[in-house]
Amino acid sequence: MSNNNISTPTPSPVQRWRDQTHQIIFEADTFWGKTFDIALLVFILGSVIAVMLETVDPIQARLGKLLFILEWVFTIFFTIEYILRIWCVNKPWKYITSFFGVVDLLSILPSYLSLIFTGTHYLVVIRAFRLMRVFRIFKLGHFLNESSGIMEALKASRAKITVFLLFISLVVVILGSLMYLVEGDADSGFTSIPRSIYWAIVTLTTVGYGDITPSTSLGQFISACVMVLGYAVIAVPTGIVTAELTEVKRKQEFTTISCPSCSNEGHDPDATYCKFCGEKL
Amino acid sequence: MSNNNISTPTPSPVQRWRDQTHQIIFEADTFWGKTFDIALLVFILGSVIAVMLETVDPIQARLGKLLFILEWVFTIFFTIEYILRIWCVNKPWKYITSFFGVVDLLSILPSYLSLIFTGTHYLVVIRAFRLMRVFRIFKLGHFLNESSGIMEALKASRAKITVFLLFISLVVVILGSLMYLVEGDADSGFTSIPRSIYWAIVTLTTVGYGDITPSTSLGQFISACVMVLGYAVIAVPTGIVTAELTEVKRKQEFTTISCPSCSNEGHDPDATYCKFCGEKL
Amino acid sequence: MSNNNISTPTPSPVQRWRDQTHQIIFEADTFWGKTFDIALLVFILGSVIAVMLETVDPIQARLGKLLFILEWVFTIFFTIEYILRIWCVNKPWKYITSFFGVVDLLSILPSYLSLIFTGTHYLVVIRAFRLMRVFRIFKLGHFLNESSGIMEALKASRAKITVFLLFISLVVVILGSLMYLVEGDADSGFTSIPRSIYWAIVTLTTVGYGDITPSTSLGQFISACVMVLGYAVIAVPTGIVTAELTEVKRKQEFTTISCPSCSNEGHDPDATYCKFCGEKL
Amino acid sequence: MSNNNISTPTPSPVQRWRDQTHQIIFEADTFWGKTFDIALLVFILGSVIAVMLETVDPIQARLGKLLFILEWVFTIFFTIEYILRIWCVNKPWKYITSFFGVVDLLSILPSYLSLIFTGTHYLVVIRAFRLMRVFRIFKLGHFLNESSGIMEALKASRAKITVFLLFISLVVVILGSLMYLVEGDADSGFTSIPRSIYWAIVTLTTVGYGDITPSTSLGQFISACVMVLGYAVIAVPTGIVTAELTEVKRKQEFTTISCPSCSNEGHDPDATYCKFCGEKL
Repeated sequence: MSNNNISTPTPSPVQRWRDQTHQIIFEADTFWGKTFDIALLVFILGSVIAVMLETVDPIQARLGKLLFILEWVFTIFFTIEYILRIWCVNKPWKYITSFFGVVDLLSILPSYLSLIFTGTHYLVVIRAFRLMRVFRIFKLGHFLNESSGIMEALKASRAKITVFLLFISLVVVILGSLMYLVEGDADSGFTSIPRSIYWAIVTLTTVGYGDITPSTSLGQFISACVMVLGYAVIAVPTGIVTAELTEVKRKQEFTTISCPSCSNEGHDPDATYCKFCGEKL
Repeated sequence: MSNNNISTPTPSPVQRWRDQTHQIIFEADTFWGKTFDIALLVFILGSVIAVMLETVDPIQARLGKLLFILEWVFTIFFTIEYILRIWCVNKPWKYITSFFGVVDLLSILPSYLSLIFTGTHYLVVIRAFRLMRVFRIFKLGHFLNESSGIMEALKASRAKITVFLLFISLVVVILGSLMYLVEGDADSGFTSIPRSIYWAIVTLTTVGYGDITPSTSLGQFISACVMVLGYAVIAVPTGIVTAELTEVKRKQEFTTISCPSCSNEGHDPDATYCKFCGEKL
Repeated sequence: MSNNNISTPTPSPVQRWRDQTHQIIFEADTFWGKTFDIALLVFILGSVIAVMLETVDPIQARLGKLLFILEWVFTIFFTIEYILRIWCVNKPWKYITSFFGVVDLLSILPSYLSLIFTGTHYLVVIRAFRLMRVFRIFKLGHFLNESSGIMEALKASRAKITVFLLFISLVVVILGSLMYLVEGDADSGFTSIPRSIYWAIVTLTTVGYGDITPSTSLGQFISACVMVLGYAVIAVPTGIVTAELTEVKRKQEFTTISCPSCSNEGHDPDATYCKFCGEKL
Repeated sequence: MSNNNISTPTPSPVQRWRDQTHQIIFEADTFWGKTFDIALLVFILGSVIAVMLETVDPIQARLGKLLFILEWVFTIFFTIEYILRIWCVNKPWKYITSFFGVVDLLSILPSYLSLIFTGTHYLVVIRAFRLMRVFRIFKLGHFLNESSGIMEALKASRAKITVFLLFISLVVVILGSLMYLVEGDADSGFTSIPRSIYWAIVTLTTVGYGDITPSTSLGQFISACVMVLGYAVIAVPTGIVTAELTEVKRKQEFTTISCPSCSNEGHDPDATYCKFCGEKL
């Protein structure tokens, strides 16, 4: 998306700077472009790790000041970068409203918000999303294609999974209330229906923290039923996604041969005639 | 199912009222019908949330009276709605014995029962099932079709899953007894065979609460074996459902059209020519 | 397997008794045969439940004596039944060494052993396996066929699963030792390598009791890696079994058309010529 | 890889010893070769178990000295074996840098390192990897072929799984930070962002230790969302691997023979005639 105004005889110097900045910040083909991108990756990683370490008490005690300074250095750097990006891009609004534009903004906002609300600056970990640029920088496009295969399968199974989640929600509300009735007085953590619903989700997803566990015989019996039920139920989303992925995979394969007459792709391996125009393959 | 007695010249006013009520309560095509249905959804959600909040002690202390009044307002509204439904439908008995009819009744009963037995009114969360009407209201029929795909797969794998569950039951009883023998004296929670069976289910389904855990070396060794076994075993229901779903999917796509010239089947949904003989489909 | 010696003009009365006993005990076609089988099922269930309840302290305190008597009544009944089975069957040794023969013996032995070794009588729950007769009694053969489908898939994936389990064993031993090194001094439950291996199994299978958990930062980092690894690894057995089940399913379907010339079955749905003899289908 | 220099009339005695040693250590076809290999397996198993038992306090107290001596006996034996392997093999460097060569070295190093750094000798459990020789010794090659099927599937899904793991990492960092904000002050274990990330991994992989659990209502609500999300997400790696395994399986069976007359592929392994044109394969 570099604007090569080849026809214009003499671009203004500001325009030249903008072009060069654009090339360095947005492209990864030139030496400086790649250097900038890698430096950016390191900075993002460094900044995320700095915020994490800040919350570890012994490290905070020893390196607190350094980490505080580092965070503001990173924030100011990312702010300048964000302003430059808006300045040098041709259609600033399109960039600002793009996925990466929003992430770029969200990754500097928390630091400034922390001047008003304490604690919010931990949200700068949202910077981690910027690491997804790694795919573009290292030309890992085919990885993203793979990922789009997953996306396609997930999208295709969206309706099924919605129905499934709605059903699970109902089951979980009913089970939670039932367990509240059964275990409510047993001093075993089922102190309210919302907490019991939380327990039902923890159990049905087989996470099983054990912070709330049934203590009465009836409660344990119901729990056991829930688990065995969940055992069969857990198979459903897996089955859905697998079926879709197998489907996507099958389709991807059949796109190799293209018809000599209508150049359509997507023929089955056992096809001898083009299914779109009837021509022999 | 609205009874449009077009041929009858002058329906009695009671009959007209019945028709209009039927249209508002049962259909979602007219403005008032849709408004009623959406209001109903909001009421159901509100009522379920009210019952849940009632069990949270701090909220109960502050808003207890309000929630109590709210619950009875909802209950009386749902009771009137239930009576109107019976009154205005053509075949009341068919409605009463239908799935939604039973749910409608079950969602008001607990409140009245709570006048006699304390605690039972929490069962009004069964109202949550009424939310399934959302599919009809918002014309989300294709979502239910998707769901019927899952149902079909689950039905087809019913026999396999029954055998599987029976087998799991046997394994769990044997393992529970074995662990009771091994860990019974170790003060680690295996206080009776039923509790040990509960432990075996918790372990085999990989829920793993941790409220009962083996403490002896032999117990831990057996547990480890159970887990590794369960690791292979958990694959079975997933495999069954996935195989069925793949099957259902494949059938939905392929078995419709057969070639008029070579009568081969198995054409893709986007095919316009037979892939085997090149004839137009 | 009833021995109808039709040709022999007058069977001895002992032989007649044996035949009748055989018909009642082994077959489920006559009225008395079915009655006996159902009574047997009830007795087995009753006996298993009795042993379970015996271990629940409050029940033992109240009904201990009754349960003790019941258990011996059941045991003596099953002993007589076992002796009758050996007596009336034509090839006793074949029955004794069959799966059900061994289970029948194992389900009475523990009671007698308990006269010498205390505690062993809980092993009578092995009687639960006898419930598998339910399939024969209620003609649920097709359920067993389904189950044989699973068995076929599991057998076909045996080699893959063996390699997988061996690999998991190695990983678990290495991880357990590593965690013992890292967490051994941290007083977090990793007191020996075998215990650490037990932890690794608990973690990798996603059971996650929480009785042993890492407390150091490094330990938690390694654990997190193990879990994410396990997340990808858990997909393998599921994938194996699913692939085999899909396969088995696919094969089962293709056995409908049989060749008019060689009457072989197992043709693909898109086959137009028999793949065994080349004849047109 | 035995060097049979048949043409050389009189090999030097050293060369003869080398050849014989090579045959015993590297091959498993002769009697002494097999005996050596089985002895080796027993020694490896014994050595791994010895190191494990050493860490169990009661056993260490009683058999500590014996186990210490045993370990050094094993180490010296393995050292001699390693030196002999290098000495007798034709291309020592190729052996040293091979997988088994590295494992052989790594399985003796820790013992010697333990003379300098205490504790490291537990790493000798790396010897367990040497047990993989069992496949070669007992000619279990087809098991390894099966395993290569899994490897192929895992390799084919490598890109998908990398994208998936990167995505999970991002989610886990964001969720961990969010939970630190929500639960940080609640004294429920979320003491730092790294620990919260550890919690997010424990939850998303459904391990669910329960050492860190949310205690606030908001925290429990977010956790419940994470679990339900994870419920759909866990399906992805399973789906990926299953789809690949089904693929590998399908290919292994079908793509070998092509019809000599119509050159169609995709025949079943038991086919003798082309299913498309009826010609003999």
